[in-house]
Amino acid sequence: MTPKKDCEKIILGVDPGTNLMGYGILKVKGNRAEMIAMGVIDLRKYTDPYLKLGRIFDRLSGIIEAYLPDELAIEAPFFGKNVQSMLKLGRAQGVAIAAAMKHEVPITEYAPLKIKMAITGNGQASKEQVAGMLQRILKIANADMLPYLDATDGLAAAYCHFLQMGRPDTTKAYSGWKDFIQKNPDKIKGL
Amino acid sequence: MTPKKDCEKIILGVDPGTNLMGYGILKVKGNRAEMIAMGVIDLRKYTDPYLKLGRIFDRLSGIIEAYLPDELAIEAPFFGKNVQSMLKLGRAQGVAIAAAMKHEVPITEYAPLKIKMAITGNGQASKEQVAGMLQRILKIANADMLPYLDATDGLAAAYCHFLQMGRPDTTKAYSGWKDFIQKNPDKIKGL
Repeated sequence: MTPKKDCEKIILGVDPGTNLMGYGILKVKGNRAEMIAMGVIDLRKYTDPYLKLGRIFDRLSGIIEAYLPDELAIEAPFFGKNVQSMLKLGRAQGVAIAAAMKHEVPITEYAPLKIKMAITGNGQASKEQVAGMLQRILKIANADMLPYLDATDGLAAAYCHFLQMGRPDTTKAYSGWKDFIQKNPDKIKGL
Repeated sequence: MTPKKDCEKIILGVDPGTNLMGYGILKVKGNRAEMIAMGVIDLRKYTDPYLKLGRIFDRLSGIIEAYLPDELAIEAPFFGKNVQSMLKLGRAQGVAIAAAMKHEVPITEYAPLKIKMAITGNGQASKEQVAGMLQRILKIANADMLPYLDATDGLAAAYCHFLQMGRPDTTKAYSGWKDFIQKNPDKIKGL
């Protein structure tokens, strides 16, 4: 890919599963986000659980090396599962985290409810509702979105992270009124 | 370390925990096993969970690159835990598996009960009983063993794997009586 500019930020979102691992990549510039890639790592063809995990590591490392994300947003597992599913999901998550740590990409984790809430305003929204909303906000063509419906949760994690961290206006911190004036001279009349 | 000979095999045993990760390394030659290293990766000083996981990956990769194990034996988590502990343990395990897969080391997993049973003959044996038995079998001096009591479970996994795989006599498979005769001409009188 073309080298990114200094003012741009790349966010990689990942939804780690043991059968399908969805990912989405956002390019953020100021308060605008653009989807530059999304996809699914299909693990169903591997019957050996270690091969599955090795494949997650290799593919995710490849994606990180290709897109050089500044941040990784990862979906946390839903806690309603049984211990056996939790162990499986934990392993898949651990592998994804290892790939990010190896490439020195900072990690932020979001609960599924938080991601749905941030994007649709409803923590109980369906996968289709989240996908529909992302498609509208990011202006993604049907042809680009439909083959990767399983990747939506990864893209949703990236977009949730953008909403939390990406916008200069929401991440600005002021240490007082004087500080606010200095950082926003255009907002104060008569200066 | 000195390069290993063709007929030797190195087994790395790991007990992945989120606070302490014990490991033990066995050199196997024929039906003899020798402990060549054991240690503990102490993760208690890291409060950030991602840093912990990154550290497991780095340290285990370093151990694999230093000792070049032919096989990795890993202790499976005990299923009596709650989902939150299971997720944590799954993550730690996933990271250890990723480090092994990245270095193309085959993985075998053993349940805690199976490891205790293989070493002491009692699936309910205490950590101290397992450590004591390993110390006697592998002739480990007190000074080498005591600082690493937490590493015992890693060494135990390696020794369990040796008992399962390492002995030529137990891994021989016969497809029938004729096959047995062909493979063991010295055992049949009058041939």
